Amino acid sequence: MIYGDMKRKMEIARNKVLNAISLHGGTTILSTGITGDDARMAKAAVEAGAKLLEPNHPAVALARGHKGVTVMHDAEQIRHEISIYEMAKVTRGIREVVGPDIYITVGIPGSFTEVVPVELTEADFKMIAEAGADGLHVHKSDLRDIREIVEMAHRHGLLIDAYIGLSTDLHPFGVPADTIEELKEVAKEMEKIGVDFIGLMTGMSYEGIEAGDIPQIIKDRLQALIETVKVPTLAEGGINTENFKAFINTGVNILVVGTAFDDIARNAIKNTVKLFLGKK
Amino acid sequence: MIYGDMKRKMEIARNKVLNAISLHGGTTILSTGITGDDARMAKAAVEAGAKLLEPNHPAVALARGHKGVTVMHDAEQIRHEISIYEMAKVTRGIREVVGPDIYITVGIPGSFTEVVPVELTEADFKMIAEAGADGLHVHKSDLRDIREIVEMAHRHGLLIDAYIGLSTDLHPFGVPADTIEELKEVAKEMEKIGVDFIGLMTGMSYEGIEAGDIPQIIKDRLQALIETVKVPTLAEGGINTENFKAFINTGVNILVVGTAFDDIARNAIKNTVKLFLGKK
Repeated sequence: MIYGDMKRKMEIARNKVLNAISLHGGTTILSTGITGDDARMAKAAVEAGAKLLEPNHPAVALARGHKGVTVMHDAEQIRHEISIYEMAKVTRGIREVVGPDIYITVGIPGSFTEVVPVELTEADFKMIAEAGADGLHVHKSDLRDIREIVEMAHRHGLLIDAYIGLSTDLHPFGVPADTIEELKEVAKEMEKIGVDFIGLMTGMSYEGIEAGDIPQIIKDRLQALIETVKVPTLAEGGINTENFKAFINTGVNILVVGTAFDDIARNAIKNTVKLFLGKK
Repeated sequence: MIYGDMKRKMEIARNKVLNAISLHGGTTILSTGITGDDARMAKAAVEAGAKLLEPNHPAVALARGHKGVTVMHDAEQIRHEISIYEMAKVTRGIREVVGPDIYITVGIPGSFTEVVPVELTEADFKMIAEAGADGLHVHKSDLRDIREIVEMAHRHGLLIDAYIGLSTDLHPFGVPADTIEELKEVAKEMEKIGVDFIGLMTGMSYEGIEAGDIPQIIKDRLQALIETVKVPTLAEGGINTENFKAFINTGVNILVVGTAFDDIARNAIKNTVKLFLGKK
């Protein structure tokens, strides 16, 4: 058996996360989007101080132009067509470039709430673990599914970050919990079944919110999550260079940032093309 | 036979290039590096006005973190390990995202001067053409090799951009021509064997050159190339946001820009990570 080996692998991985949180004064970032799957940009993120990276299958669908998708909403519909093998290849490449000290959590077909039945097998977890992943990025929306994934993942030394959302979310990226009471219940349950890092989906409407601030409901929900669990907490969705300090002020441990990086790289490229073409 | 179909395919492709040169006042850009192989950044480049894109195998080696390479010099040593099938997949994805009106020229194992024997077959040209390429980006360093590639490429409706270099170049990315006379000879020969676009490698030392300027030898060599051939001309190597106007002033038709885009995206990502982590 490899129980001991995998327990050790998980301890090392957990320490990477705890050390990053501590190093960055209580709140670090999980760098995703183009910084999670393109080795050039992952390397840049790490050189600038990022310690946690997340390649995921919808971002790879965008990177590869799979079926011509160019926006995340469309990528979410076809992300399950990116193979787990492809995600293992991406993970291996990122690991090769960033070295062993960076925490890598991976989104794969079946670790999200997919629109077609994608069942994960032991072989899938093994492939992702062997490719160099420390964890699995889980956007399942049912606690039973999460429990099954946690058990299989831990057998392969992979930690789990899973999320809590709202029943009205456009994409079901977490277990729905609409009230603070429900949120606390779900968070407790997640911790009990062994989820290693618990996150809150925060990608709701920011309309009418002052620049730099975030909605009160997000503050309240993050506060409730943080108070309820002992494991490190994450916020994912809507985090950008304008409002990240408001997120940090809630005391959440990890900000998941993807789209903001894509947008910033995109704008840098656009401005440079325009310069070369004499448009500015 | 498909002679007529392929002749038509090449006419359409050539017009994409001629129209871009004309639209941009005589000098356009061939956008490569991360803008050539990552569908997110290719889309951004095209939205900003780029009409010519170039995915290539060393850049894909960097994108995938293949064998842990993080700098172009190392990528050049192992680029042949990126399969032609992978390059066809990349090409298809970029084509899906940018649509039919963008000119796409592709670098594949065997279209460059490789360090191991990589022989291209008719099936390879067919695969790249079917994936949506308009042309092949050729960095062979011998006219006999280029002649063979031109013949096979044209049979599959693919145009060819090939290059002239110096015998002292670190990487043999072109047919060596050290004097102006040799350069004119090689350029004439290239045009005669049917190279559709002829480029000059300009990635030499820029030490001691005033900011914004380029070495006199590059100006002289570009001038000689432009005077000698009727086909559109390219400059590749060392072109950045500081010196591109000096390149445009030579009258060259196409600036090949890759590393400058990678560096700009990289710096944008780094600055943003530092901002999130409170380092700036």
